[in-house]
Amino acid sequence: MATSQPPKRQKTSPFELIYWPGAPGRGEHVRLALEAAGASYTDTAFIENGMKLVLSHIDAKNLGDASNPPLLAPPILKHGDLLISQTSNILLYLGPRLGLVPKDDEDGIYKINELALTALDGLSNEAHDTHHPIANALYYEDQKPEAKKKSEDYIKMRLPKFLGYFERVLKGEASKGGEWLYGGEMTYADLVLFQCLDGVKFAFPKAMERLEKEGKFKGVFGLYERVKGTTKIKTYLESERRQTYSLGIYRHYPELDED
Amino acid sequence: MATSQPPKRQKTSPFELIYWPGAPGRGEHVRLALEAAGASYTDTAFIENGMKLVLSHIDAKNLGDASNPPLLAPPILKHGDLLISQTSNILLYLGPRLGLVPKDDEDGIYKINELALTALDGLSNEAHDTHHPIANALYYEDQKPEAKKKSEDYIKMRLPKFLGYFERVLKGEASKGGEWLYGGEMTYADLVLFQCLDGVKFAFPKAMERLEKEGKFKGVFGLYERVKGTTKIKTYLESERRQTYSLGIYRHYPELDED
Repeated sequence: MATSQPPKRQKTSPFELIYWPGAPGRGEHVRLALEAAGASYTDTAFIENGMKLVLSHIDAKNLGDASNPPLLAPPILKHGDLLISQTSNILLYLGPRLGLVPKDDEDGIYKINELALTALDGLSNEAHDTHHPIANALYYEDQKPEAKKKSEDYIKMRLPKFLGYFERVLKGEASKGGEWLYGGEMTYADLVLFQCLDGVKFAFPKAMERLEKEGKFKGVFGLYERVKGTTKIKTYLESERRQTYSLGIYRHYPELDED
Repeated sequence: MATSQPPKRQKTSPFELIYWPGAPGRGEHVRLALEAAGASYTDTAFIENGMKLVLSHIDAKNLGDASNPPLLAPPILKHGDLLISQTSNILLYLGPRLGLVPKDDEDGIYKINELALTALDGLSNEAHDTHHPIANALYYEDQKPEAKKKSEDYIKMRLPKFLGYFERVLKGEASKGGEWLYGGEMTYADLVLFQCLDGVKFAFPKAMERLEKEGKFKGVFGLYERVKGTTKIKTYLESERRQTYSLGIYRHYPELDED
């Protein structure tokens, strides 16, 4: 990636995160990357009319501009005149700029992107679908029996599958020691996995406590604590910028958790 | 991207697609990119013991190697000693190498990746979930009532949402004329959208026929025909390398389509 030489116009532009106010959601992955790097940024979660700004970007009448296609959904990153969406895509752009990808490893970015996409698939998108298996347009209350079935499968089959996969990644030689997912240092893939685990712990506390106690995924839970304990992330999590979970991707419905 | 100078060891390596034999599936997005560029490649769909080779890559005992983390699922691309997975990630790697991203447009890759991810979200992953809304581990026959509900929502709400979004992209100035999604020439995002539309047409022929006749998404259906008519893609689709849809991502259950 020619990321060592980003276009000059952008070098001094601030990073602007455009995401729904009110819950960490998918925007949290972008926040954690910016926070871990100590970057300065603006955030529509904390400005007046933030919601209005989000909506203007995804309005059906908004056709984008000469260089940016219109956008379907937040999170959106604005950097200079660049506007991009899709969580993993924003991280792909930010990673090299924030020092959150492996250095001197030209193909490393593809491995980090792969790991981030896999965490988002299994521990964010699928976790969301546990409470909305039938339709996003319906309330949870209108799809409760289906949500219960899906959650049972998620806890029994999917969650161990994905935790087991990341355990395998940490055991692999490419992790360079098993502390971080790839290359022996923290990358944005670790931040993504941390946030996914944090969300799933919120949604399914009993299942996650049991899985942690069983001891099969020590590497994964160790990575979770390791990310949580880094200075910048710790400071961020204790700050008011860290929002509480609400009716977003991760929801805690006790009836969906295991007994 | 420093993709103008890929590592030398890889310059003469063949591209190897590692994907389940038996259905186009997610591997088809990789095939279409390779075919559109006239690249030579190997494909586990058409070799002896192809299935065995796929399984060996994702085996729970496989921990990857010194530079590649283990992989969770195909499609997988092998190129020299590089092994990567995740459909959009493979395309991100191949795009610049195959001339399927905008030229002289440093940030163009992030727009192409964004468009590809959005098509895969709404027109591939969600289309898959219509027949498997509760659990991948169960048969369709074990989740038929839920599949019917999800399909109704998909046809009514989600499909028009995503088709409308891409129509908006084509109307936007960044498409440079509305023939292709971005920048006035065919990129791999167009190929991804083509394949997604083709799959959804197979799964929900009646709904798609109605939506096409209604005339609201002329740009999108026009792009579909445009990709289909390019020389290399046309030749490919008529070849034996183009597999027929089966019990994969896209399935045609008449009872899930509209009446």
